[in-house]
Amino acid sequence: MSVLLRNATIVSMNGRREIFADADLLVERGRIAAIGALSDAELPPGTEIVDLSGRIVLPGLVDAHVHTSQQLGRGIADDVDLLTWLRDRIWPFESHLTEDDQHLSTLALGVEMIRSGVTTFSEAGGQHVDAMGRAVIQLGLRAALCRSSMDTGEGLPAGWVQPTETVLGRQIDEHDRWHGAADGRIRHFFGLRTIFNCSDELILKTKEIADSRGTSIQMHVAEVPAENAYAQETRGASTIEHLARLGVMGPNLMGIHCVWLTPREVELFAEHRMPAVHCPSSNMRILGFAPIPDLVAAGVPVGIGTDSPPCCNRSDMIDEIYLAALIHKGHRADPLVLPAERVLEMATVSGARAMRWDDEIGSLEVGKAADLIVIDPRDIGVLPVHDLVSTLVYAMHSRAVTDSMVAGRWIMRGRRVLGIDEDALLGEIAARSALIAKRAGITLPERSPVVRVR
Amino acid sequence: MSVLLRNATIVSMNGRREIFADADLLVERGRIAAIGALSDAELPPGTEIVDLSGRIVLPGLVDAHVHTSQQLGRGIADDVDLLTWLRDRIWPFESHLTEDDQHLSTLALGVEMIRSGVTTFSEAGGQHVDAMGRAVIQLGLRAALCRSSMDTGEGLPAGWVQPTETVLGRQIDEHDRWHGAADGRIRHFFGLRTIFNCSDELILKTKEIADSRGTSIQMHVAEVPAENAYAQETRGASTIEHLARLGVMGPNLMGIHCVWLTPREVELFAEHRMPAVHCPSSNMRILGFAPIPDLVAAGVPVGIGTDSPPCCNRSDMIDEIYLAALIHKGHRADPLVLPAERVLEMATVSGARAMRWDDEIGSLEVGKAADLIVIDPRDIGVLPVHDLVSTLVYAMHSRAVTDSMVAGRWIMRGRRVLGIDEDALLGEIAARSALIAKRAGITLPERSPVVRVR
Repeated sequence: MSVLLRNATIVSMNGRREIFADADLLVERGRIAAIGALSDAELPPGTEIVDLSGRIVLPGLVDAHVHTSQQLGRGIADDVDLLTWLRDRIWPFESHLTEDDQHLSTLALGVEMIRSGVTTFSEAGGQHVDAMGRAVIQLGLRAALCRSSMDTGEGLPAGWVQPTETVLGRQIDEHDRWHGAADGRIRHFFGLRTIFNCSDELILKTKEIADSRGTSIQMHVAEVPAENAYAQETRGASTIEHLARLGVMGPNLMGIHCVWLTPREVELFAEHRMPAVHCPSSNMRILGFAPIPDLVAAGVPVGIGTDSPPCCNRSDMIDEIYLAALIHKGHRADPLVLPAERVLEMATVSGARAMRWDDEIGSLEVGKAADLIVIDPRDIGVLPVHDLVSTLVYAMHSRAVTDSMVAGRWIMRGRRVLGIDEDALLGEIAARSALIAKRAGITLPERSPVVRVR
Repeated sequence: MSVLLRNATIVSMNGRREIFADADLLVERGRIAAIGALSDAELPPGTEIVDLSGRIVLPGLVDAHVHTSQQLGRGIADDVDLLTWLRDRIWPFESHLTEDDQHLSTLALGVEMIRSGVTTFSEAGGQHVDAMGRAVIQLGLRAALCRSSMDTGEGLPAGWVQPTETVLGRQIDEHDRWHGAADGRIRHFFGLRTIFNCSDELILKTKEIADSRGTSIQMHVAEVPAENAYAQETRGASTIEHLARLGVMGPNLMGIHCVWLTPREVELFAEHRMPAVHCPSSNMRILGFAPIPDLVAAGVPVGIGTDSPPCCNRSDMIDEIYLAALIHKGHRADPLVLPAERVLEMATVSGARAMRWDDEIGSLEVGKAADLIVIDPRDIGVLPVHDLVSTLVYAMHSRAVTDSMVAGRWIMRGRRVLGIDEDALLGEIAARSALIAKRAGITLPERSPVVRVR
C-alpha cells in the first residue's frame, strides 16, 4: 500500500538538516520512496492521498530508554529517597507483576508513547519479555526488547538474581525468538542492569554474545556517586573506567544516565564511540545533572529516554525534549548550551544512532523506513511559529501530535490510537494497578486527610 | 444563579489540606456556599447540577507573574544570550505592539492560561493596560493588571522611560479606572520594572501610593548577578538589601524571580513577610536556580509564574508546577525537597497570598469566591492514580483540565473556552505576530536550510 503525504512542512533531520516547505512525501512498501513535489500521475495506483497543508511532518521520536514494566506503578514512589524508592516501592511492585500485568503495562505506556510522538523505543528491561513483544506487535510500534539481567546483588526480589549462565541462556532464548520479529520492527538487546548487579563474567560474556549476534547491550552507568564508589571498592575503578579496562565499551553498549562522569570518562565514551542516553526528568528527580553538553560536544551519540514512569512521571518524550533543552542552560548558567536543533537531533537521529538503527530510522530520507509523525501547530500552546525548530522543542506539547506511522502503517490517526480500545484500556489500568500495589503490600503515607462526606 | 458540582473529589487546599471524597460543592452568587453531601431538597430552585463522578475539583491556579504583552513574540528569542534576548528581540517586539496587538496578545495568553487551569493571573506589566483589562473582561478571568514602569535606564525603546511623576500619574489613572473593576475580579498593581530602571524616588513614592490605596507592587528582583553588582555600585547594597534599607519591603511588594539571594536576603523576605514569585522555566532558560526551598522553609509566601512567553516558552502553569517540583531536587541532589503538596500550595493558596487575594481565592472554602477547575484523570498520561496530589503535580498535563469557573461563572466547559471564537483567534495570532516581528525589524537566523520544492 502506498501513501502520499501532500503539502506538508517536512522537518527531515537529514545530514543537512533540511526542512522541505510545502512538500510531498511518498510511502511505498513501508519505506520513504520520494520527497518533493509529486503529481498524481507519478503515484502508484491506489495511493492514499493525505492532505497535510499547514501540518508538520517529523521523524518519529525515539525513546531510547523506557521501563515499560513500571507504568502501572507511576505515583507509587514520589517524594522519597532513592533507597525507599527502590527497595520499598519499585522492586516490590515490579516483582509482583504477572505476565498479563506486563502486557497491560506495555500497552499503557505504548499508547502514551504514541501520543507523545514516539515510534521507536528501547525497553530498559523487565521480567516478562514475551508480554512486551506482544504489546509492541499489537500497537504497531518499533522497539528493542530487553530483559533486566542480574547475576549478583543483595536485597533483590526472589528470582531476579540468577546464575550467570541462566541469565545469558534466557536472553539468548529471547533473542532467538524476538530479534527481527514483526518484519524487523522488533529487535532484542541484551541487558546489564548495573555494576552492582552484574559480575565481570556476565559483562564480558554478554559483550561477546552481543557482538557475535550483531546486537546491542543496555547498562545503567554512573547513576549515583555511590555507584562509582562501589565500583572503586570492588573493581578498583569507577564504572566507566572499569568497563573500559574490561574492553567492553563500544558502539553496541548503550550507557544509560551517565550522570556522574569525569571529563576523562566523557573522552572514553567518545574514543569508544559508545552511545549515551539522557533521561532528564528522572535525573532531576533522583540523580543530578549529566554532562550531556560535553558528551554531545565530544561527538558521542546521545539519545533521550523517558526512563521509569514512577520517576519521570510523565512518560512523554516531548516533555523530556523540553526538559533536556531547559535544565542544562540553568545548570550551566548559559542560555546557548544545547540549542533546540541539538535537542531535536537527540530525540530523533541521535537516538536512532544510539540504538544502531539509524540506517533505517531517525530521519526522513528516501530509502529509510516510513516512521513519522504529523504535528498540527494550530494550537493555542504552539502558535505563533516564529522559529519552527525551537517551537517544536520549547513550546509544543504532545497534544499537537495528531498522526503517527511506523514502517508505512498508521498507528495513530486524528489522535486516535489504532489497534486498541483506549477507553477500555484506561479502565483496566485503573483497576489492575491498584490490585498490583495491594498484592505487593505497598501502602503510601497519606499526604492529606481524606474527608468522607457520604 | 447556583451551580451544584456533585460527586467530585475536592482537593480543597484549605488550612488542613483536606480532600473531600465523593462530595458536592454548591456555588451561589459567585461564592462557595457549601461543601459536603447535599440533597436536591437543599438546593436553591433552578440550580444547575453537574455530575462530576470520577472528576477532581481544584482551586483555580494562580499564575503569579505573566507578561501577557509578549505572547505573540513566543519563539523570537530562543537560544540567545540575555542581552540579545532583551535588546534585539524583546524590546523591539514589545515596543511595536499597538493597543490592538496587546488586546490580541492578552486574549491569546488568556486562552492558554485557561486551558492550563489558571483562573487568576498577575500581569507583569506592559504598555497598554486598558487593552489587557478588556481581554480579561471578555474571557471572564480574574487578574491584577500592571504597567511596566521605569523612570531611568539606558537603551530602552522610545517612550518607555518617563519622568517619575509621569510614571506615577499614569498608574494612578489606571488604578482608578481598573482597581475593583468587573465586580472586583480585576485589581490593579503598581509596577517597578527592575533596580536598573527605577530611581529611589520612584520606588519610595510607589510604595507610599500603593500603601495608601491598599494595593500591591511588583518588582523583578535579584534576577542576575549583574543586577546585584549594579545595585552595589549605584546604591552601595544588593537589590534586596537596598529595598530593605529604603524600608519598602513588605507584604504588598511582590519580589519576582529572587534567584540570586544570600541566606540573609532570604531572612529579609521572611522578616518583612514579603512575597516571592518563582518562574521555573524562565529561570532555567536564562537566570539560574532560585533558593525556593529556603524561601518556603522560611515561611515566605511563594507563588509560581509562567513569566515571559519568549522565555518560558510554554505559558502553561501545569508545566511550571512540574518544573518547580523537579528542578530543585536535581539542583540540590535531594529527592525530598519541595514535595508535591508544597508545590501545589505554591500554585494555589500561596500564589493567592503572594497577590494578597487569599481572603477570596486560592482554596475551596465556604465563603470564598467560586474560582475552580475540573480535572478528568481518565487520560493515558494521568492514570493510574496511586497518590492523588503527586499525580496532579508530577504526571498531569493541562489537557486534563476540562472546565473552569471564575466567581461562579463558567469560563471553560468541556475543554471549550467560552467568550471567544478560539479558531478565529488562532488565525489572528499567526497572522498578526508575523506582522509585528516584521514591523519591529526582527529577522531570525535560519537554523536549518529551507528547501522549496514548489
